[in-house]
Amino acid sequence: MSNGQLQTLLTPTPEEGFKLAVKLAQKGVEVTQPSEEIRGMLRPVYSTDADSLISVSQVIAIYFQTVAFANNYWIL
Amino acid sequence: MSNGQLQTLLTPTPEEGFKLAVKLAQKGVEVTQPSEEIRGMLRPVYSTDADSLISVSQVIAIYFQTVAFANNYWIL
Amino acid sequence: MSNGQLQTLLTPTPEEGFKLAVKLAQKGVEVTQPSEEIRGMLRPVYSTDADSLISVSQVIAIYFQTVAFANNYWIL
Amino acid sequence: MSNGQLQTLLTPTPEEGFKLAVKLAQKGVEVTQPSEEIRGMLRPVYSTDADSLISVSQVIAIYFQTVAFANNYWIL
Amino acid sequence: MSNGQLQTLLTPTPEEGFKLAVKLAQKGVEVTQPSEEIRGMLRPVYSTDADSLISVSQVIAIYFQTVAFANNYWIL
Amino acid sequence: MSNGQLQTLLTPTPEEGFKLAVKLAQKGVEVTQPSEEIRGMLRPVYSTDADSLISVSQVIAIYFQTVAFANNYWIL
Repeated sequence: MSNGQLQTLLTPTPEEGFKLAVKLAQKGVEVTQPSEEIRGMLRPVYSTDADSLISVSQVIAIYFQTVAFANNYWIL
Repeated sequence: MSNGQLQTLLTPTPEEGFKLAVKLAQKGVEVTQPSEEIRGMLRPVYSTDADSLISVSQVIAIYFQTVAFANNYWIL
Repeated sequence: MSNGQLQTLLTPTPEEGFKLAVKLAQKGVEVTQPSEEIRGMLRPVYSTDADSLISVSQVIAIYFQTVAFANNYWIL
Repeated sequence: MSNGQLQTLLTPTPEEGFKLAVKLAQKGVEVTQPSEEIRGMLRPVYSTDADSLISVSQVIAIYFQTVAFANNYWIL
Repeated sequence: MSNGQLQTLLTPTPEEGFKLAVKLAQKGVEVTQPSEEIRGMLRPVYSTDADSLISVSQVIAIYFQTVAFANNYWIL
Repeated sequence: MSNGQLQTLLTPTPEEGFKLAVKLAQKGVEVTQPSEEIRGMLRPVYSTDADSLISVSQVIAIYFQTVAFANNYWIL
């Protein structure tokens, strides 16, 4: 993603696919709360709350499913 | 979507596919709470609550899965 | 659906597919709470609660995934 | 399902597929809480709680996805 | 699963596939809380809480989706 | 995964596929809360809370779905 724009779902490696999934999860939050300042204030809350962290991990998992499928699971 | 009517799941780019997923997530809320006034009152609540934002991001993730598949992941 | 019976998952358009997903989400609630009166009492609660609305939107998203796949994403 | 045993995922109609999804959702609860008495005591709680009903509807939605796919969406 | 090791996703019947899904849901809990004693203390809590039971049912539903697909829905 | 880098989704057995799913669920938490110290403080909280454990199990279930598909369900 350049300038926050999603260009492609293809990534050269699973690791980069995972990173893309993380970015997509964040992007979903950003569209709903565009203020970087407010998101910054919320970060200490959810990043120290176990249940919030688990929920974030779940959103990443759903995006990773999409990204992994798009990349045919990086199987050559 | 024109007039809030979903015309197609096809989008020219992943970025526009993501935007469609966001709109579909909103559409699901709108059918359940049609009052724009009440939705407007709820916005400051969920948009400043970390867990609500994560939940919104999850709904977008599920719709994006559908939209991405429909577009064959925008792979030419 | 006629008389609340699900006849088919096929719909002519994405918009009608979305409406079917909404009906299926409601149907899941109806089988668990058949009383129209009690459901009517609960409506003002969840329809004015941001997190409940987001959860409803998620259930619709899951059903829409199924309906969209069944219709081959309405691609001719 | 006879005697609570899941015999097949195939159903003649979407309506019966939906009913099977409901039964599977219940079955998941039954294996975790085998006591019919305790489940009966919990019923008035979740069946009058909007968020619980939405959650039940979500579990049904996930099972319906599986059942619908198994039946090729009942497309002849 | 013998000795808690997952050997295969294939099962002869849907009923056994469902049982495997239940075991996998439990396995996910066991890896996070390996102490059988603590898990035993938590059991009376979640097994008498409607929302917890619904959540457990959801995890089983996700695993059942995987197991059912692996077994081609037990269609001969 | 070596050095926390995801190299491949392929695993020789279902059991190792399950372990990979567990690692991916943890990885999703780690990217959001990189401090090993804070994660260590949160562990006693979620590992003794039934609902948290069920949520963790759900995230693993979603990753396992991806890993199992990538490995064609370990069917020879």
